[in-house]
Amino acid sequence: MSPLPFILDTDPGIDDAVALAAAIFSPELELRLVTTVAGNVSVEKTTRNALQLLHFWQQDVPLAQGAATPLVRPLRDAAYVHGESGMEGYHFVAHDRLALEAPAFQAIYDCLTASEEPVTLVTIGPLTNIALLLTHYPDCISKIKRLVMMGGSAGRGNFTPNAEFNIAIDPEAAARVFRSGLEIVMCGLDVTNRAQLTPAYLAALATLNRTGAMLHALFSHYRSGSMATGLRMHDLCAIAFLVKPELFTLKSCFVAVETQGEYTAGTTVVDLDGRLDQPANAQVALDIDVPAFQAWVAQTLALAP
Amino acid sequence: MSPLPFILDTDPGIDDAVALAAAIFSPELELRLVTTVAGNVSVEKTTRNALQLLHFWQQDVPLAQGAATPLVRPLRDAAYVHGESGMEGYHFVAHDRLALEAPAFQAIYDCLTASEEPVTLVTIGPLTNIALLLTHYPDCISKIKRLVMMGGSAGRGNFTPNAEFNIAIDPEAAARVFRSGLEIVMCGLDVTNRAQLTPAYLAALATLNRTGAMLHALFSHYRSGSMATGLRMHDLCAIAFLVKPELFTLKSCFVAVETQGEYTAGTTVVDLDGRLDQPANAQVALDIDVPAFQAWVAQTLALAP
Amino acid sequence: MSPLPFILDTDPGIDDAVALAAAIFSPELELRLVTTVAGNVSVEKTTRNALQLLHFWQQDVPLAQGAATPLVRPLRDAAYVHGESGMEGYHFVAHDRLALEAPAFQAIYDCLTASEEPVTLVTIGPLTNIALLLTHYPDCISKIKRLVMMGGSAGRGNFTPNAEFNIAIDPEAAARVFRSGLEIVMCGLDVTNRAQLTPAYLAALATLNRTGAMLHALFSHYRSGSMATGLRMHDLCAIAFLVKPELFTLKSCFVAVETQGEYTAGTTVVDLDGRLDQPANAQVALDIDVPAFQAWVAQTLALAP
Amino acid sequence: MSPLPFILDTDPGIDDAVALAAAIFSPELELRLVTTVAGNVSVEKTTRNALQLLHFWQQDVPLAQGAATPLVRPLRDAAYVHGESGMEGYHFVAHDRLALEAPAFQAIYDCLTASEEPVTLVTIGPLTNIALLLTHYPDCISKIKRLVMMGGSAGRGNFTPNAEFNIAIDPEAAARVFRSGLEIVMCGLDVTNRAQLTPAYLAALATLNRTGAMLHALFSHYRSGSMATGLRMHDLCAIAFLVKPELFTLKSCFVAVETQGEYTAGTTVVDLDGRLDQPANAQVALDIDVPAFQAWVAQTLALAP
Repeated sequence: MSPLPFILDTDPGIDDAVALAAAIFSPELELRLVTTVAGNVSVEKTTRNALQLLHFWQQDVPLAQGAATPLVRPLRDAAYVHGESGMEGYHFVAHDRLALEAPAFQAIYDCLTASEEPVTLVTIGPLTNIALLLTHYPDCISKIKRLVMMGGSAGRGNFTPNAEFNIAIDPEAAARVFRSGLEIVMCGLDVTNRAQLTPAYLAALATLNRTGAMLHALFSHYRSGSMATGLRMHDLCAIAFLVKPELFTLKSCFVAVETQGEYTAGTTVVDLDGRLDQPANAQVALDIDVPAFQAWVAQTLALAP
Repeated sequence: MSPLPFILDTDPGIDDAVALAAAIFSPELELRLVTTVAGNVSVEKTTRNALQLLHFWQQDVPLAQGAATPLVRPLRDAAYVHGESGMEGYHFVAHDRLALEAPAFQAIYDCLTASEEPVTLVTIGPLTNIALLLTHYPDCISKIKRLVMMGGSAGRGNFTPNAEFNIAIDPEAAARVFRSGLEIVMCGLDVTNRAQLTPAYLAALATLNRTGAMLHALFSHYRSGSMATGLRMHDLCAIAFLVKPELFTLKSCFVAVETQGEYTAGTTVVDLDGRLDQPANAQVALDIDVPAFQAWVAQTLALAP
Repeated sequence: MSPLPFILDTDPGIDDAVALAAAIFSPELELRLVTTVAGNVSVEKTTRNALQLLHFWQQDVPLAQGAATPLVRPLRDAAYVHGESGMEGYHFVAHDRLALEAPAFQAIYDCLTASEEPVTLVTIGPLTNIALLLTHYPDCISKIKRLVMMGGSAGRGNFTPNAEFNIAIDPEAAARVFRSGLEIVMCGLDVTNRAQLTPAYLAALATLNRTGAMLHALFSHYRSGSMATGLRMHDLCAIAFLVKPELFTLKSCFVAVETQGEYTAGTTVVDLDGRLDQPANAQVALDIDVPAFQAWVAQTLALAP
Repeated sequence: MSPLPFILDTDPGIDDAVALAAAIFSPELELRLVTTVAGNVSVEKTTRNALQLLHFWQQDVPLAQGAATPLVRPLRDAAYVHGESGMEGYHFVAHDRLALEAPAFQAIYDCLTASEEPVTLVTIGPLTNIALLLTHYPDCISKIKRLVMMGGSAGRGNFTPNAEFNIAIDPEAAARVFRSGLEIVMCGLDVTNRAQLTPAYLAALATLNRTGAMLHALFSHYRSGSMATGLRMHDLCAIAFLVKPELFTLKSCFVAVETQGEYTAGTTVVDLDGRLDQPANAQVALDIDVPAFQAWVAQTLALAP
């Protein structure tokens, strides 16, 4: 079976770095384009971080920089989770890699149209670039196999009481994406909060390989959990879904994103029980086989240099 | 220790009937007034149901009828849970009891001012009457010991994906109550979904006493769970809290009610992690000792005739 | 022709005082009940002011006190327009008149049901009491001939850029009233800003009669216009409509009250051009014959003692 | 004095065509870039229309196509005003002109950075492209002399009761632009409804020159007024402001765009009286010298071929 072609939209971010490793070194996947977006930190920083990672792994996949801010609201970042630079804790060497000239949504569109087969979109940051793609190219939907996102929650949030970070940062973009007709798989906190790496594995990473050492160094600055009790690999779940969809329990249902609330903007309203009488527009991941996920992570990172 | 004086605002409703039984027959409590509100069914029906129950138990506690509709929105009832009459399944005898002339909020105020000590308010329906009380008598707060409510959720809802029924029916009333400065204990779905009676006990109720037989008949029409696997006693939790607060794990935090959302109106935004930087205005019940709750229910209903 | 029976809901307020004078001394009208509401100043003050006016004119029409606050929002009053007491500038003598025991909405309902014919409601303050009436007695609509209100605007506002004071103080109450099915005549700023009394007449009032002298004294403290260039008689327009509907140009159309806006809560959305495709629910006064209005005012106040 | 360099963002549209004529043939102006946006009709049509006009006048100013939809909401166009094609009524000859490859916001940014002096932005359609510019290049503000827009209203709207078309089509984009810190001149319906061309002049246009004949043909299909009583030249006002600012009465004040209302989304809340206590962010045109405007139009269109 030929590898699955996909585009990764990311805002590294420490768990983004792990997701990028898996995106590159999973034999089942073919990463065609990386695009960056403002989220965990500013887009200048997420671009710099992504380029440093590509250089670290000596990968030539093209990278395009995306939106510097959400569609409508000012950016509130997550430097409190990922450190000031977004990837604190490891000293990357200098390089002269540059982003493409085209903005992310344009590069995505060009990549989609250059492909003979529909391409999968994977987003592990706010959905701004995807909303911009839809704003410029409403016809792109037919060229997208599906959108697999890390974002949202059927329960409580991690940025406001009811909203998950990636959705809460740009609720208007997310609302647009969920209304677009795209086939969507939503990997939200319902699974990503459970997708933890164990302290034992985290410790072992340090000596696994050069990649493990780098990630281990980053993890010591990551604030979504603790090295001593386990770290949540939110973004990695979206990559895991590409390779191992059978690890996830999905439910097809209607999901809306609240953009109008005084306290609830960015909440993903996940209609598991069909109370809102709307057609399903997403497959929502509600459970994950954690040991199998951990085994896949170990197996995949072992393939990295 | 003298019994705790309190007022019960209710919309019977089958689990309201159980709550009323406990309210009457708990020796630790002194029920001074019953008020009714539109909610599970229309206020004419909730008043009729409440009067029938008082007559069934030959109780002379006064009853006042309250609001026929929510403050702003049209009434959407829960006849799908409680049956058309709100208390389907048992044939109550005729009687000539009447509600007081004064509307509920007025009767509550009169009851509060007639008391030498602050009185506890317990609400197990929408908060319309309490909002009306605050609208007419903003100074009443000093006469209220505290408000213990069945309502809300720190997680998912049971009426819309994110909103619990009692709050969702009248979000504006609830928003007002949470902003009022009243001392509030919120017993929401986080505990009430777990506060189930077991199939064994439900079966035993039929022959416990006259009250048990009546409740058993009602239960066969109640749609919040199943006789075969367990029934949720949402409203009973608020009475349990009065008598056995030690069964509940509480967290003091800020709670807001969303009134502005397109999809989230009526959501209780429970800021467990202090993300919103607002002073606490409620104690939220997050856990309940289920076996101890069940034991208390059994003990209390055994005291009924 | 027998005089028109009506109920006046008011928040005096200086232009309310003029409206009350006209309500009492117009031979075409029969004032059956006065009710008060929080608005221009607190309900304690509006009640005191209304009682003082009734005493001033030795009228025995019953008065009931209404809501102390809006339905949902905190009260923001208009003491900046009417002075701290709401009726600054005249020293009223002491008296021992009292409001009825029943709250305003209850007194309105009792008055409606005691009447053999439908009664007109006139509101010249926020619509809180009318919303409370609808909350308790949804069936009252058949007993109300129509509701004539001073409130709203088809253009700009006078409290926020887009909202008129009476509606902006309690948008939820107003929204409910406009959705109720009541027959509504809306006299908003479109006519009331033009319904001015001239400096010459204002000066002449001082020596017209005892009532004129009292009003003249109040006017020197009224901030809706200037004695030197003309004063706006917002509330008086609603009484003028009862007596002289032919002075007004009306348009039947759909009116909604915005309750959800970040900047526009309390805006009356007046669909003059049928853009919203909703059935008409109000007759909106768009023009007024100002000289004829002024002549009617002069004629009516000359009848007062 | 050297001509004023500016960029025109447009959605032709019939009054856009007149504005483009004035933009090209006013000796005081230097049109550096035309960008198109979805609005009066789809962006494919507005691009085609704009290219046809540039070809008609044999102008080589570059043109870039912009957003196909608003940021968040679906497009609702104004074909009911401008005809199905957006420029019904004149048969334009075939040509092979093409838009630039870069999307509008990118072309605007490139134009701004290529200029040694700050450049003026003129928008006569929805503000989507400007919001996209700010999303990608938040630093662009220093390169923009100011933004002169046709859009908004301090009074009633022309698309919903309270909202003007250009703002109502993309309220989120407009809200973002008004919050951006850009120096903004808002020419809204307050002036553009009055900026009419007289029937006499409209008739005379037919034989003025080739341009006049073309515009005359379009006008016979334009639905913002009538050839017999006068046509409103909404978009032309923004160009008039560039050349003849002295024709306009401006007021500096705070303007917000409502994005949250149930009925008022897209309303420009223009705080003329300082009620909202916010710093001014726009100069709002409140009056226009109509005869002088008409004279300038006649003088300018006489310069066209």
